[in-house]
Amino acid sequence: MSSIRSSAGTYNCLLQPDLKLMLAEGDEVGLQQFCEVLNPIIVAEVVEGLEPADTWRLLSSTSIDRQAEIFESIEPTQQIELISAVDRKHLSQLVEAMSADDRIDLLEHMDEEQLEALLPLMAQAERDEIRRMLSYPDNSAGSIMTTEYASLPENISISDALGRLRKQAPDSETIYYVFVVDEGRHLHGVITLRELILARPNALLADVMRRDVIAANVVDDREEAARMIARFDLIALPVLDEEQRLVGIITHDDVLDVVQEEAAEDAYRQSAIQPLEHGYLSTPLLTIAWKRGIWLLVLSVMALGTATVMRLFGKAEQDENWLDWFLPLVLASGGNTGSQSATLVIRAMSMNLLSKQDRVRMAVRELATGMILGTFLGLFAWAALQIMFGRDWMQAGVVSLTIALVVTMGTVTGSLLPMFFESLGMDPAIMSNPLIASLSDIVGVVIYFSVAILLL
Amino acid sequence: MSSIRSSAGTYNCLLQPDLKLMLAEGDEVGLQQFCEVLNPIIVAEVVEGLEPADTWRLLSSTSIDRQAEIFESIEPTQQIELISAVDRKHLSQLVEAMSADDRIDLLEHMDEEQLEALLPLMAQAERDEIRRMLSYPDNSAGSIMTTEYASLPENISISDALGRLRKQAPDSETIYYVFVVDEGRHLHGVITLRELILARPNALLADVMRRDVIAANVVDDREEAARMIARFDLIALPVLDEEQRLVGIITHDDVLDVVQEEAAEDAYRQSAIQPLEHGYLSTPLLTIAWKRGIWLLVLSVMALGTATVMRLFGKAEQDENWLDWFLPLVLASGGNTGSQSATLVIRAMSMNLLSKQDRVRMAVRELATGMILGTFLGLFAWAALQIMFGRDWMQAGVVSLTIALVVTMGTVTGSLLPMFFESLGMDPAIMSNPLIASLSDIVGVVIYFSVAILLL
Repeated sequence: MSSIRSSAGTYNCLLQPDLKLMLAEGDEVGLQQFCEVLNPIIVAEVVEGLEPADTWRLLSSTSIDRQAEIFESIEPTQQIELISAVDRKHLSQLVEAMSADDRIDLLEHMDEEQLEALLPLMAQAERDEIRRMLSYPDNSAGSIMTTEYASLPENISISDALGRLRKQAPDSETIYYVFVVDEGRHLHGVITLRELILARPNALLADVMRRDVIAANVVDDREEAARMIARFDLIALPVLDEEQRLVGIITHDDVLDVVQEEAAEDAYRQSAIQPLEHGYLSTPLLTIAWKRGIWLLVLSVMALGTATVMRLFGKAEQDENWLDWFLPLVLASGGNTGSQSATLVIRAMSMNLLSKQDRVRMAVRELATGMILGTFLGLFAWAALQIMFGRDWMQAGVVSLTIALVVTMGTVTGSLLPMFFESLGMDPAIMSNPLIASLSDIVGVVIYFSVAILLL
Repeated sequence: MSSIRSSAGTYNCLLQPDLKLMLAEGDEVGLQQFCEVLNPIIVAEVVEGLEPADTWRLLSSTSIDRQAEIFESIEPTQQIELISAVDRKHLSQLVEAMSADDRIDLLEHMDEEQLEALLPLMAQAERDEIRRMLSYPDNSAGSIMTTEYASLPENISISDALGRLRKQAPDSETIYYVFVVDEGRHLHGVITLRELILARPNALLADVMRRDVIAANVVDDREEAARMIARFDLIALPVLDEEQRLVGIITHDDVLDVVQEEAAEDAYRQSAIQPLEHGYLSTPLLTIAWKRGIWLLVLSVMALGTATVMRLFGKAEQDENWLDWFLPLVLASGGNTGSQSATLVIRAMSMNLLSKQDRVRMAVRELATGMILGTFLGLFAWAALQIMFGRDWMQAGVVSLTIALVVTMGTVTGSLLPMFFESLGMDPAIMSNPLIASLSDIVGVVIYFSVAILLL
């Protein structure tokens, strides 16, 4: 299996039984150690399987800063579930303790009501910053930056700079890149921590820093910012506002998220799915059906073009062969829907390790989507065949029913086959879209002619 | 357009005229400044359009270390072109000055002969290291690591550690993570530079360092290593050998390459193309034809299954409709080949900005691949129709000729349409695989029945 994914599974299996025992026994000391000894990212992965109330009991055993560190690593959808299960005061403390970029991520996922309940509990300065951060457009550099960067004035010595940097360190996302600004926060230069510790202690910062700083603008596309970090192998990229003032930084670890999301978007588009904004399992069924259906409708219209061409080539006495005109329509409906399902499932599996429960949910959702799409495309064909091709309602019904069946079957095979191949330890992408489509062709022909023999 | 790509175009346009003027005038001082003032990554992008001899004249104007920095950022295929245009002594100095991971990348791209000519000119120690590095399996953590890491013994004070680190800095890929090892190079702990400068100067390194180090093994899959860096937001990941000795590190910027390559592999697989090892334009035509043809053959066999089912459903007197049996085969051949072409072109465009010249080369290559694949699949169908379906050689010839034409047309439309949409400033991925396939269906039907009317 290619693509990066988290291997949450391993830690869950090893640590969850211990954790559940400690929760059952009310072992406060054990819970505290669990939070403080383990890497917060691992703790976040283990709590994914817990009830919200248990997660809060675990988190409450440690300091608010450690709670924030763990909470930041929890998946957005689970974060939203968790915040409805805690009192607002605890929540506001937690949100204040979170790092700026993770906080904005969380707030962007909250609904208006949750946000309005939370903001009044926070300090004025924090509130203003949050409102400003939330005002940056989606997908902009501003929307993924953090405001917690290290900065220094230029007219100080290197040893003074190191001293000041030590004080800023606890509140900075990184201190490996230090930005040199004036009183108006205009960016004059940059120096890396490596350069700082190698410079003579009594040299002046202004003489050692680099002045040609690679920077992004707050309204730049986040992809453009990611591209700069990737191209110049940066650890942090400064983000400037219209007046060239430093407003934040984007760090190297944010690039990976952007690259992975973009790869998913490309894969969706190539299989004729409008890109999803969230993960497959956290997107409502009707949204998914819409993002697939709109393209399937376009493809159906084109297949009707193919049918028209076939009708033109058939001689008058061959009108009895009308069933064949719609063979490309019927087969493409099944193949395209199946390819969409395979793409969605393979993408979901390449981004995260899916639990057994997730797989079942996914298959059920695909079945339901298939029935919705099948009904919709079937009704469209039923109307089109009567209006454009002069078929009676029964003849149109044969094509229409076949499409409904073939599309439903396409979603089921498209989703189950990749899962099956992965469970055999093979790369699920071996079930390529054309392979799914050609399997669907064989079954499609059988369904089409069987329905025709039964009904006509 | 989604996905990260380098925007080489902009710099080429701005800087190349100046550079060419300086080369024409033999302006040595200008050339030296060009190499030393500009970011080496930008210099590397500008020389992409130069003749090898001019590139070497430019590089020779600066120090060997700077030459290595620039050379490291040049694309592997161009690096190989360049090394055949320089004397071996200059080359061996350059290779010695390169950083360890980029050097191995280069040597892996050289052929046996080039390698054997170069190695004897290098120092014994370097040679041994190179041979060891080259022995790690492809796609292993060992194959992407660098051996230039910073390391310290554990029984020293923090201030002593900082002093020693300053001495190691010039030869280390990063000093932000410092690895604590014993005399046998066994890894005992890690400390970040941030922690070092925040610690009390007289504290003992062993008391401050972290002992639970996240590390990869040298034979681990490079994806597994990339996943660890991504998951724990690391700047560097230590790589250990079987005896738990530290042999190298993988840095954050390497992850991005892995992620992008894996995304490309996924995209190829999903469109029924065996993954390419190098970029599209640097892979031989026959290799590409083979990696596509093998899957197209499997898909043709499945479409013959569809034809068999259709024959079974047709009544005896309907044998005259035999042309329709092979409609799914004909249409799928065009659609699948077209989707493959679209995937290859869209991927190439999302990884790099293609020059006009690259685009023309790409379209010509696709046309040639289409003719090769079309001939091959056509001949296969010609034999299969006579043997399996009892068609005479003329009837089989109709299907066979149609397949050859439809496949060739598929590669041409599949490659040109995404380029056309990108030139309009739109996302080329809007030309999704199903859309290419359904366009190909309409043209395919026209070709099929026209050929049949002409020949039968």
